[in-house]
Amino acid sequence: MTDYASRLSRSRAIAAAKGIDILLVGTGAEFAYLTGSWVSSHERLTCLVIRPDAEPVIVAPSTDIESLHGVAAQLVGWSDGQDPYALALEGARPATVALGSSLTADHVLRFQSAIGNLEASTAKEQHPAKYVLATEALAELFTRKDPDEVAELRTAAAAIDAVHAEVPRLLQPGRTEADVAADVRELILREHREVDFIIVGSGPNGANPHYDFGDRVLAAGDPVVVDIGGTLPSGYHSDCTRTYVVGADPAAAPAEFREAYAVLEKAQAAGRAAARPGTTAQEIDRATRSVIDDAGWGEFFTHRTGHGIGLSTHEEPFIMEGNELELAESMAFSIEPGIYVPGKWGMRLEDIVVTTESGYESLNQAPRGLR
Amino acid sequence: MTDYASRLSRSRAIAAAKGIDILLVGTGAEFAYLTGSWVSSHERLTCLVIRPDAEPVIVAPSTDIESLHGVAAQLVGWSDGQDPYALALEGARPATVALGSSLTADHVLRFQSAIGNLEASTAKEQHPAKYVLATEALAELFTRKDPDEVAELRTAAAAIDAVHAEVPRLLQPGRTEADVAADVRELILREHREVDFIIVGSGPNGANPHYDFGDRVLAAGDPVVVDIGGTLPSGYHSDCTRTYVVGADPAAAPAEFREAYAVLEKAQAAGRAAARPGTTAQEIDRATRSVIDDAGWGEFFTHRTGHGIGLSTHEEPFIMEGNELELAESMAFSIEPGIYVPGKWGMRLEDIVVTTESGYESLNQAPRGLR
Repeated sequence: MTDYASRLSRSRAIAAAKGIDILLVGTGAEFAYLTGSWVSSHERLTCLVIRPDAEPVIVAPSTDIESLHGVAAQLVGWSDGQDPYALALEGARPATVALGSSLTADHVLRFQSAIGNLEASTAKEQHPAKYVLATEALAELFTRKDPDEVAELRTAAAAIDAVHAEVPRLLQPGRTEADVAADVRELILREHREVDFIIVGSGPNGANPHYDFGDRVLAAGDPVVVDIGGTLPSGYHSDCTRTYVVGADPAAAPAEFREAYAVLEKAQAAGRAAARPGTTAQEIDRATRSVIDDAGWGEFFTHRTGHGIGLSTHEEPFIMEGNELELAESMAFSIEPGIYVPGKWGMRLEDIVVTTESGYESLNQAPRGLR
Repeated sequence: MTDYASRLSRSRAIAAAKGIDILLVGTGAEFAYLTGSWVSSHERLTCLVIRPDAEPVIVAPSTDIESLHGVAAQLVGWSDGQDPYALALEGARPATVALGSSLTADHVLRFQSAIGNLEASTAKEQHPAKYVLATEALAELFTRKDPDEVAELRTAAAAIDAVHAEVPRLLQPGRTEADVAADVRELILREHREVDFIIVGSGPNGANPHYDFGDRVLAAGDPVVVDIGGTLPSGYHSDCTRTYVVGADPAAAPAEFREAYAVLEKAQAAGRAAARPGTTAQEIDRATRSVIDDAGWGEFFTHRTGHGIGLSTHEEPFIMEGNELELAESMAFSIEPGIYVPGKWGMRLEDIVVTTESGYESLNQAPRGLR
């Protein structure tokens, strides 16, 4: 059993230490992490309110309160016609406010307006509230996975590895990307609660990192990028990319592609080798990028090296230039360099890793070589 | 073919008329309405930028630009490491900013920070930017449906009516709510691209307006609230509630329930009768509520009367006390009063209606009586 009460009290302690007067967390992955509930009430505000000096409160439509019973916070229902923003603030006059990332602009602006109005009633010396992101304020909590979370991510990685094990036999000449994607969908659902995404990018389609799949017919020797992920019943996600050659004969792929793939493998291994407590996120990006740059393919590696993963598929730590976040033990993230040559082919190699005391554990174990 | 260029130019004209310097619309229903694209790039900013004095621009990750080709806006790609917020603002110093509702807090705060920094470089007399919601600023555009949109909503209503036509035979004593929901899921998918939600609330479970379904076994004479909706391939939504009696014999239901249902039918009819151009949203709420109040059931009608519907399931006009929005021709919304007696039963009756020149058209045609 996850100890949500402990997560909430750690949030309070972090808020106190960072001078945050109030944390307002809308529904979604952060809310689920802190409370265990995936409730959503869309345009009607549901919000977890954390303050250093008070017990946690969830403000939600009265009609949704029932589904929140058992959560380790006080429940406050509101009805249509009441002002849920004022209810969430309870007369607080916060100087520093942390907002959960998932709170949408309609809620953000109404909170800002409510906080502004509170201030207007106080003395002139009050300066406007400062807003920060809960994602950043609570990064040490969200990014450091509990043993249970690592276990879930390990299960997720094994689940998607099992799908990748079936992919080579699906990539037959004459089939379309969509045929393959349909099979992959069934396989993901056998191992997960939901399909998150399916990319089957063959030949030139692989050169678009965010392609999904289409009607292109596979030919023997075509490079194919297969990037797939799903959600476990627990809410944790899988995400793994392998690059294949149609017909399972890598020697049939273009020579230039095979040369580049050797570089990609080295780059991804360099990224993994850099993954340990004390390294910064951007140093891992530099580790993969420098191998690709040095081999002359740098202009074709057009995205960041990776992203954190947990109850959301993309979260901190983002593995990219400019992110000076220092890695600590038990952070989970992808290492996924790629090389994309427009009009020709693409390639990407992605594992989810978790930092250990002195290095990393690769949760994905599917073979990394071309096949 | 929807004329997205015309929607964009109407947005510019509205922004100019309302003194809005820049409209920033994140991905989702509003973005799809204005551009035709449902692209999403999550934590990486994709944003439609509309200004009175410039052509519309979409700023998106370079890796997603390809999927936006053909959209009636200039495309500006950004790569990891670049600042997409500065790119979207292009040095503009907006005094009034309208934000799309779906923009999440991470993007909102980064835009506010970027706009604040721009201001810091200007003269002291600059006051902080004012933020409004695009949903409200462009309400006259979003809420008034084109003939094509009304046609789609009519198709959606017919699709969900066809599902309701099958529901009485599914509600057999001895089956569970979950059994019924599984059948309903298949039926919705036969008529829609996606299932949005399924409520099968029998007996006391019907008293929670936001229940979904569970393992309760149906008994003859049980009242059951069935509220279901899906998404058409076009992105338009259906949403319709009917209340049934298990075993298709309304006389077997509790007498008190049947009395209340007669009140509910009158209340919903009163709401429809009030639906015409010139009425305010809150007047429709009052029309349904006063019937239920007068009959003594007022404390059990615990939610607003309805919500707009289109490319999102819940949007303006919200039919509730306090919403003074004046209805115009071609607005689409639900009229769905309910009565919920905790521990006993619930009931709700919901149609999607569209205002006409002088009244309304009910898009849903499923019989409203108990059956």
